[in-house]
Amino acid sequence: MSIKITKPSILPGFMELTPKEQVAFNHVSDVIRRNYESFGFLPIDTPIIEKSEVLLAKTGGDTEKQIYTLTKGSTDMALRFDLTVPLARYVSQHMEELAFPFKRYQIGKVYRGERNQRGRFREFYQCDVDVIGNGSLSIVNDAQIPSIIYKIFKELGFENFKIRLNNRKILDGFLRSLNIESYIEVLRIVDKIEKIGEEKVREELKEYISSEEAMDSLISFITTTGSNDEKIEMLKNLGVTHEKFVEGVEELETVNKYIKVLGVPDKNYIIDFKITRGLDYYTGTVYETFLDDYPEFGSVCSGGRYDNLAQYYTEKKLPGVGISIGLTRLFWSFMESNIIDLNKNSVMDAMVIPMDEDFEYGIEICSKLREAGLKVDIYVEGGKFPKKMKYANKLSVPNVIIIGETEKSENKILVKNMVTGDQTLVTIEEGIDILTNK
Amino acid sequence: MSIKITKPSILPGFMELTPKEQVAFNHVSDVIRRNYESFGFLPIDTPIIEKSEVLLAKTGGDTEKQIYTLTKGSTDMALRFDLTVPLARYVSQHMEELAFPFKRYQIGKVYRGERNQRGRFREFYQCDVDVIGNGSLSIVNDAQIPSIIYKIFKELGFENFKIRLNNRKILDGFLRSLNIESYIEVLRIVDKIEKIGEEKVREELKEYISSEEAMDSLISFITTTGSNDEKIEMLKNLGVTHEKFVEGVEELETVNKYIKVLGVPDKNYIIDFKITRGLDYYTGTVYETFLDDYPEFGSVCSGGRYDNLAQYYTEKKLPGVGISIGLTRLFWSFMESNIIDLNKNSVMDAMVIPMDEDFEYGIEICSKLREAGLKVDIYVEGGKFPKKMKYANKLSVPNVIIIGETEKSENKILVKNMVTGDQTLVTIEEGIDILTNK
Repeated sequence: MSIKITKPSILPGFMELTPKEQVAFNHVSDVIRRNYESFGFLPIDTPIIEKSEVLLAKTGGDTEKQIYTLTKGSTDMALRFDLTVPLARYVSQHMEELAFPFKRYQIGKVYRGERNQRGRFREFYQCDVDVIGNGSLSIVNDAQIPSIIYKIFKELGFENFKIRLNNRKILDGFLRSLNIESYIEVLRIVDKIEKIGEEKVREELKEYISSEEAMDSLISFITTTGSNDEKIEMLKNLGVTHEKFVEGVEELETVNKYIKVLGVPDKNYIIDFKITRGLDYYTGTVYETFLDDYPEFGSVCSGGRYDNLAQYYTEKKLPGVGISIGLTRLFWSFMESNIIDLNKNSVMDAMVIPMDEDFEYGIEICSKLREAGLKVDIYVEGGKFPKKMKYANKLSVPNVIIIGETEKSENKILVKNMVTGDQTLVTIEEGIDILTNK
Repeated sequence: MSIKITKPSILPGFMELTPKEQVAFNHVSDVIRRNYESFGFLPIDTPIIEKSEVLLAKTGGDTEKQIYTLTKGSTDMALRFDLTVPLARYVSQHMEELAFPFKRYQIGKVYRGERNQRGRFREFYQCDVDVIGNGSLSIVNDAQIPSIIYKIFKELGFENFKIRLNNRKILDGFLRSLNIESYIEVLRIVDKIEKIGEEKVREELKEYISSEEAMDSLISFITTTGSNDEKIEMLKNLGVTHEKFVEGVEELETVNKYIKVLGVPDKNYIIDFKITRGLDYYTGTVYETFLDDYPEFGSVCSGGRYDNLAQYYTEKKLPGVGISIGLTRLFWSFMESNIIDLNKNSVMDAMVIPMDEDFEYGIEICSKLREAGLKVDIYVEGGKFPKKMKYANKLSVPNVIIIGETEKSENKILVKNMVTGDQTLVTIEEGIDILTNK
């Protein structure tokens, strides 16, 4: 019987990694998860397929065009395109079972049928962390969110990165105090200042701001320099009395205070009055994060405070604050910039290589090493010694344990460090010490 | 503006857990992952959506009816319905990048539009582990697979479970030596003996086996009792010389030998000549696993040896051996049988509860506890003390750390064990000792 061969391939825009890359990817994902959990966030896992009417309760915009929909029988279904809508649905649905503030994290795949281009993925992981209050939510939470992000990028080995921080109420109140009416349009232009420069921003703003004084005042405000504490002082001495402005300054001052208490150094966060983020969603604190040495990555995680998470599913008011890391895109950027040395990644601590076909002693060694918490494999295929070593090499295993007649008769193991090439004949206990103190 | 409220709900047949349940679920998933990795298996993560022509290269059967398909533009896509087909595609596609034997695990969601019924899910996690050889693969691998399963169920707290083990070649060769021709039909009937009993099996077999002697011989063979070693001895003394039979016995003997070496006790695995599994797929060793105290769960994980993983994608011969745990179904069974005490599950080790609105000291305590590897949250909302304690209680936090004036002025913390009710005023260092030596 001859079988038709189908060319093995995946769809464009989907990321698939080699095992070594996957080990590195999982490391990043684990660091994120561990840090989210260390701040007491609870895991949830929602279905990837949901009812269309639920996922699309808030319709409109480009998102809808990008959504993967499917039908089975008479049910209209869609694949989730973010983790925020499922969170809103989850919280509304399970209100009675949850304790508020509800602190949840979710790491999962989402789907968007984006135009096919480098670095854009149609299936990608988001790693979201949010605190949801029932009716109200302390501003101190807004300080915790960026401190988790700080911990994560620190643990991933970055020193030079900046979490940019603002409070939407401040710019809002400031514009109102200048009697600028086209609020949304102005914010949209202001948000572009880093990309297009001050001159162009002034030009575009002319349509909405006629007074030269107001224009200067606005530009000077959003380009304020100085330390975070100096910026707070500046805000307090500005003499703006608009209620929103005052509220925003108070909030930002509290967030600034507790970010320090949480141990985030001044060099890793910066108050920046230009940051506005999604205009129709965030209402207070907003965040963006940039790696200083890789500005081309853009913001590697962003988020903020919102007044009302789930207005499409419940009449309860659920304010929240959260942030999201686009893991697939971030990891792709890491690979593009050679930030990750794949040859340092091995799932294994050691591989046992027996010189002959009797695996009893080798397997016993494996079991003892595993009991000591080590990840170990044994090569049980046929072939000559060099072939076995080549296999261990290809997998970038940091150590091999060679088992021959001498080792068996002396009840020892020969540990070979694959990086230095050093090898020593030791007892199993000594071997465990070598492998665990690496 | 009034917003239309959509009732928050998910599709039938999809599992969604409360955060406490999710913590327990993740624990099971973590145990599986850790054990797979401790044997040196490499992670892979394939797209959930693949090309229809690829996923359905091997067509036919009930599976196809259950598949979720979707189209976007001119592309026919489908959601994966298992992790085996994606593995076959992955290995064929990435042959050159992989080292063989390729040992991979994958934990991920798969989709089947099954009839809606209790305990059946349309989205469920599979946890697969396989070793794939290029051309050939040592039989020793067939012993490692069940020993991983043993470790997993042991670590999940089970003592009484049995991995049932057989080799398809043995029954195959045995039937051939009896000159029974309707091989597949006979196996299908034999497989039902536990469900329908010996009498009914004999009755159904009459159609295919006319000789009473052959019938007795077969029934006595498949119902052989005794220890695993005794069964191997019995096989060797049976005098059957059919090539397949001899090959199967040799393989089973090797597997039996190394399972022992791998430390699986006799009580946890049993050679059982009745086990056949998927008739068109497995060709040698086959496994099923049953929890003695919960026979109603059925087989909680099964698998075996196959000759040719990827015949629909490559002409290379890729033999393999693997096993799969249906995690969603398993976890659902755990919950149904109250095996998991959800009130013992907390993502947190402790929650800091400040008596007033100044959180500086409390947050510093949190940071120190986190540095010691603990998972800690601080309650920063308003409200009276009982409300805060109620929150900690609802989350089943094992310890709370109460911070009042005394604690701040003496630079101490009050650790309260929420299970025993004991509370002690200690230094932070002493507190860390209490919380880590729990």
